[in-house]
Amino acid sequence: MVPLKSYLETGRIDVDGALARLMPPVTEPPSRLHSAMAYSVFAGGKRLRPILVIAATEACGGSREKVMPTACALELIHTYSLIHDDLPCMDDDDLRRGRPTNHRVFGETLAVLAGDALLAHAFHLIGENARVPGVSAAAVAEAASVVGYAAGSLGMVGGQAADWLAEGRDVDEGEVQFIHRKKTGALIAASVTAGAILASADDETRARLSEYGEKLGMIFQIADDILNVVGDASEMGKAAGSDAKKGKATYPSVVGIDRARERARDLVSGARALARGLGERGAILGELAGYALDRKN
Amino acid sequence: MVPLKSYLETGRIDVDGALARLMPPVTEPPSRLHSAMAYSVFAGGKRLRPILVIAATEACGGSREKVMPTACALELIHTYSLIHDDLPCMDDDDLRRGRPTNHRVFGETLAVLAGDALLAHAFHLIGENARVPGVSAAAVAEAASVVGYAAGSLGMVGGQAADWLAEGRDVDEGEVQFIHRKKTGALIAASVTAGAILASADDETRARLSEYGEKLGMIFQIADDILNVVGDASEMGKAAGSDAKKGKATYPSVVGIDRARERARDLVSGARALARGLGERGAILGELAGYALDRKN
Repeated sequence: MVPLKSYLETGRIDVDGALARLMPPVTEPPSRLHSAMAYSVFAGGKRLRPILVIAATEACGGSREKVMPTACALELIHTYSLIHDDLPCMDDDDLRRGRPTNHRVFGETLAVLAGDALLAHAFHLIGENARVPGVSAAAVAEAASVVGYAAGSLGMVGGQAADWLAEGRDVDEGEVQFIHRKKTGALIAASVTAGAILASADDETRARLSEYGEKLGMIFQIADDILNVVGDASEMGKAAGSDAKKGKATYPSVVGIDRARERARDLVSGARALARGLGERGAILGELAGYALDRKN
Repeated sequence: MVPLKSYLETGRIDVDGALARLMPPVTEPPSRLHSAMAYSVFAGGKRLRPILVIAATEACGGSREKVMPTACALELIHTYSLIHDDLPCMDDDDLRRGRPTNHRVFGETLAVLAGDALLAHAFHLIGENARVPGVSAAAVAEAASVVGYAAGSLGMVGGQAADWLAEGRDVDEGEVQFIHRKKTGALIAASVTAGAILASADDETRARLSEYGEKLGMIFQIADDILNVVGDASEMGKAAGSDAKKGKATYPSVVGIDRARERARDLVSGARALARGLGERGAILGELAGYALDRKN
């Protein structure tokens, strides 16, 4: 088996190459808008969601070449959500990945529009995935449906709204779980599911991967919350403790940091067990579950 | 032939019914977000873009039942663009269709998120269109690609950005045309093209309908600009002259109102000629071109 570190590195390079090909050129008018989009897309992200699309499709016997447009689409959706999340009317953040946020560089108007355009372009790319030889158009249509649902009000945006509506008031563990499952979990899970769909996996495998994806999304969010409390600002690219200052509903603030870690470890065990059910092909997905918890940024 | 007025009325009723079925219920959490989405979707719109999807598909021998999810998707994309256009960082409008704008009722944060969620849900619906019996998945994938492109930085959002970047400085007729073709034209044209794609029309018919759609989009925008100068505020649901006050690049401000009307009439003739090439089935599209110019709001 390829070590996880190499897998992540190769995946990131492949995705960066595909994004460079599949994004509108910054020279295209309006070039200021295209620059704003490129600024946030090429900001040194780890490309985790695209790598999940790839890892899931490979775990089902598919090939990465066939899913690259959809893999890139998931990164564009993630990037758009960060741009809008940072806006003055949302989290009002000045820094993201150690650089000024999009609206701090391009202004609020272009930041809103750059996010909007990235979301639309993502679905253009998913549609274009049907042109890749050997990809079923029915799978592409289903991927568009699943990703659109996960990105919308019953998924990621619903989680962002619930998160914002909960700010500054007391919430219980169930509510934090609801927010997390949607805000981070929905798009992570959709990345995994889209990979399985495009590989035309059978229903049992898809169900297994969906469950794995949901657990993985929760692990990521809990790990982010823990990092926000105890992490190193220089590694994270933003100030530690910023969630607490905003009165955000996080796992550590509701159940304490030890119980948050314990819950994350349980989720990692569950995700690994699901990955094991896929045999040797699922090994990378198993490793990814542990990585999601242990990463430093 | 059905008179245009009945066609528009029946279309609006059919689309309203489909939207009521295809939107997430407002009782679903987060219900404040779903209320914000519903507030703008059910604000008495004429449903022109969905009706164009329907009219185009019927002009190609398709049936409206088969395209309803995509028709509704085009309305959701239009609605999201209005919500974001009205934001304080964009046009900063207080009124839309005679009612307070979304952010005046729900606040800026939920208005941004409601727009985002409508855009994502639109592509969920396009993907779901593949479940309608008799609809080709390849056509659905292509429709997603075309609509995603038209809604993005090389289409509608590109036009919004160019419009904003042009505000308050001198622009020439070519630049106004560029902005119009993208800002309004792209989504109108995509509505027509999506209808043709879903009817599996041949290449020649599709090319004809694309050209028709582009002309129709320009007609709509010029007519909007003229209405903004000479229209009745109570019929338009917003103040007349608001574009000029903002230094917007409009047709009448660049070439004068007479030449703007002349240009629109030329476009109507061109669009009608293209519709005539479809025979009797294209009659409604021909009428729609004249309606686009002569409407009062």
